[in-house]
Amino acid sequence: MYLGIDIGGTTTKMGLVDASGAFLSENHFSTAPYSDANQFLSALEREITNMVSLVDHKLKGIGVGAPSANYHTGIIENAVNLGWSEQLDIKGHLEGFMDCSVSVTNDCNLPAIGEMTYGAARSMRDFVIISLGTGLGSGIVSNGRLVGGHHGMAGELGHVNVKPNGRRCGCGRQGCLETYVSATGLKRTLFKLLADYNGGHSELKGCTFDELTAEKITEAALRGDHLAKETFEYTAQILGSKLADLLLITDPEAIFLVGGMARAGELLFKPTRAAMNSSKLNTYNSVVEILPSSLPPERLSILGACGLIMNADEPSKAYNKNTY
Amino acid sequence: MYLGIDIGGTTTKMGLVDASGAFLSENHFSTAPYSDANQFLSALEREITNMVSLVDHKLKGIGVGAPSANYHTGIIENAVNLGWSEQLDIKGHLEGFMDCSVSVTNDCNLPAIGEMTYGAARSMRDFVIISLGTGLGSGIVSNGRLVGGHHGMAGELGHVNVKPNGRRCGCGRQGCLETYVSATGLKRTLFKLLADYNGGHSELKGCTFDELTAEKITEAALRGDHLAKETFEYTAQILGSKLADLLLITDPEAIFLVGGMARAGELLFKPTRAAMNSSKLNTYNSVVEILPSSLPPERLSILGACGLIMNADEPSKAYNKNTY
Repeated sequence: MYLGIDIGGTTTKMGLVDASGAFLSENHFSTAPYSDANQFLSALEREITNMVSLVDHKLKGIGVGAPSANYHTGIIENAVNLGWSEQLDIKGHLEGFMDCSVSVTNDCNLPAIGEMTYGAARSMRDFVIISLGTGLGSGIVSNGRLVGGHHGMAGELGHVNVKPNGRRCGCGRQGCLETYVSATGLKRTLFKLLADYNGGHSELKGCTFDELTAEKITEAALRGDHLAKETFEYTAQILGSKLADLLLITDPEAIFLVGGMARAGELLFKPTRAAMNSSKLNTYNSVVEILPSSLPPERLSILGACGLIMNADEPSKAYNKNTY
Repeated sequence: MYLGIDIGGTTTKMGLVDASGAFLSENHFSTAPYSDANQFLSALEREITNMVSLVDHKLKGIGVGAPSANYHTGIIENAVNLGWSEQLDIKGHLEGFMDCSVSVTNDCNLPAIGEMTYGAARSMRDFVIISLGTGLGSGIVSNGRLVGGHHGMAGELGHVNVKPNGRRCGCGRQGCLETYVSATGLKRTLFKLLADYNGGHSELKGCTFDELTAEKITEAALRGDHLAKETFEYTAQILGSKLADLLLITDPEAIFLVGGMARAGELLFKPTRAAMNSSKLNTYNSVVEILPSSLPPERLSILGACGLIMNADEPSKAYNKNTY
């Protein structure tokens, strides 16, 4: 059995999983209160001891995903989303504590690893996962392996440019994809459309900016609210045209949309497919599916962390075939 | 020794190369006259027999690059740039003819394979090559392997969108990168600037559209012609901002600019570096070099074809390391 740990700014999620992806045990605790790396580490080790003691299997390894975690060093480096500022050698500490192998990666890679190890991408060697939450993250798999990049920073699709002098982004630039395509982008688009249509007849015009959420826009769209529906179409147009560019760059077999905003389902998927297909190169005849995750959303990251250590332990033959 | 063959619409280039990349023999013949695949094949086989008979080494394999050639099947499929319309099973025919192993790939992949096998990218696992000729081609290498894509169509960077409703492209769409960044794009930009400045004082305003070439623009820029210099700056601005996006997607160690237009040297390289660095994400602190090829331009494709078969024969350990 493997232990998968997803350390997030708010919550740390953990699961004991067997090689088939079945959960033997699951737990989570709040990360937010910890402002000291060592105190967080002690809490994590307590939780690990509890979980492992209750299950009668040998632990073969631990996979960890965390913000700003470096695969090569096993260190959580300079995580602005976590409560502490010190570097944390999570790999070194956990290897010493549990006497098993530990692999660490940036948390944004977990959905791709989970999907390729246990999900619908198991048989795929080339695919892309787009995670739509507060921001937009992505994982690109080519030749059966995650495209990590020379500095471990590949897959930052959320910051490719959509529009020069476009919306202001938290990164300090303007026009980044995630300012349009994310839960936050959806909200910004609805406010833009309220402005364009002078409020229109939207049921959402009574919401303040802080009250509005992607869920409220989704619910309003499902009830037939025109502005909420147009918000999804506007978002899908931008996402679809960027996915058409991505087909040209990495030529995936399928594109998965995951994360909170993907729960809007066909409201988002249908116009995104249409926009991608109308933007793509004519000679690109192949149908590239846009798919939801095949795994339970709340477990996808834990499964990714387990996949990380399982594959490190027993490299799949698929990763070793030398082909151009 | 290996035989590398680069089949182009105009010329077929061939070279016998040893494992270190040294040329034992070199030849080329005109592809254009052949309107029948079998006649071309007979001519190619004659040339191969001649070349190999003059060198006293055993031929270990043949690598072939050709337009629309499929790595998986070894067939040149539907090459609009070649004089014939039939499919040509070049791998099957040459294997039978020479009794050695043959590998085939799309010719746009050859520069990347050449550079990673014999050139400055030998020690790199993640890099990008942009080929600037009549159009714009690209090869992306990740984890030490070429990103080929599920349908073998990855690296078509020339057709990502720069500007909605932008310049008309041969692909039938508008605003593709290669309509701005290529020898043809350079010429179109000079004509746009002649229009903007009402001719300005450019020495090139006496040229007709068909007379103008990328070389003439380069020479005028080197002589200090303002419009020709601005043409390179305009081109570099668009290329640099797209390279900044590419850093976010595949995070390469270096980017190589090769092909005829790269001969403009610092006229192109310097403003491209400046544009990429001013567009890139602030948190992307690492310096990514924009470099010329380290190999002789006229031999790069032949070396790529040799690298293709050499690596198929003796897979480098670098390709087999399983890392995320």
